[in-house]
Amino acid sequence: MKDVVIIGIAGGSASGKTLIGKQLKKAFSNVSSFQIIKMDDYYKDQKEMSMEERYAVNYDHPFAFDIDLLVKQLKVLKNRQAIEKPLYDYVTYTRKDVTETINPSDVIILDGLFCLEDENIREILDMKIFVDTPADVRFIRRLMRDVKERGRTLESVVNQYMNTVRVMHDLFVEPSKRHADIIVPEGGKNRVAIDLLKTKISSILNEDVL
Amino acid sequence: MKDVVIIGIAGGSASGKTLIGKQLKKAFSNVSSFQIIKMDDYYKDQKEMSMEERYAVNYDHPFAFDIDLLVKQLKVLKNRQAIEKPLYDYVTYTRKDVTETINPSDVIILDGLFCLEDENIREILDMKIFVDTPADVRFIRRLMRDVKERGRTLESVVNQYMNTVRVMHDLFVEPSKRHADIIVPEGGKNRVAIDLLKTKISSILNEDVL
Repeated sequence: MKDVVIIGIAGGSASGKTLIGKQLKKAFSNVSSFQIIKMDDYYKDQKEMSMEERYAVNYDHPFAFDIDLLVKQLKVLKNRQAIEKPLYDYVTYTRKDVTETINPSDVIILDGLFCLEDENIREILDMKIFVDTPADVRFIRRLMRDVKERGRTLESVVNQYMNTVRVMHDLFVEPSKRHADIIVPEGGKNRVAIDLLKTKISSILNEDVL
Repeated sequence: MKDVVIIGIAGGSASGKTLIGKQLKKAFSNVSSFQIIKMDDYYKDQKEMSMEERYAVNYDHPFAFDIDLLVKQLKVLKNRQAIEKPLYDYVTYTRKDVTETINPSDVIILDGLFCLEDENIREILDMKIFVDTPADVRFIRRLMRDVKERGRTLESVVNQYMNTVRVMHDLFVEPSKRHADIIVPEGGKNRVAIDLLKTKISSILNEDVL
């Protein structure tokens, strides 16, 4: 049986993590089972908290995530067993009652701001990628997305960015770069870097077949 | 005939560029012809200058290099023809009378501080790597090397570092990182990154055989 390859993709908000994950998944759509897991689905359940308490939580801090469950489930996937991945309800800030079954896969991508920040997660990762995109470009992408797609006001985007996103980035995301095996500049548009990653994943998958 | 793969490895002084180049060369020693070219060999000849003028030159500035000759010779190598690479005499700050014959090779590594800084060089490179090592670690490596191996005094190493190396790094080397296809943290000790590069080079070499 092939080894499962688990790849972490970290990087700041709107750095292009998701696009890289999608491009890799597309490249392997015919040859291997490939799953992308968003770390955001592992936001802590907060059923026991009042709505005021839930509003007050800093969702851009690693403490907002249920890292224990994530690590446990990654280990299950590494052993080629299925998991019931939590789903998060962004309206009530609690875990949904339904889960999503993730079947065992040859390749698992973990996509998340903080996936290189936590030591227990890092230990499970076979490859640690950090997507490095200039802060101003990231802010502009986030602004356009939040205003156009999520109907947020310019002021609310700027306030959230300055008060939490930017502060937490400098505290937790940027320093986690030093744990990366490889840093990809500019996210999903870097053809050479994506090609390099594709080749490496192919190689690992083929080696294990032999 | 296989295409020649030309890979540029840039990064600050003592970042670990050379070690990466050596490790890649070693990995391909049995399968392909592989040459490492040091950009330092292309320091400008200064025969026409007085010794005082030669001392006054800033050797940590891109202008100190004969980029035209380097680009011309890389193009010759790309066409699978041999070159007569210059050799530099660090005592007289001039080009030596002898040259080194570099035979056509499957893979050419260009190792140099400024190899991603110049647009004409970048256009020839098939893969652009930047080795990113923290500035304090680089300074410490440089200090140990210059004091132990080159008999320099602590004071002279610090002066050169603060007056030219560091200034030129911030002006030319660090900004060239944005041209990289891939950034390798911490130089030659990053096993995963080197493995990734090896796999990609193998893949290019094999593709071209088919």
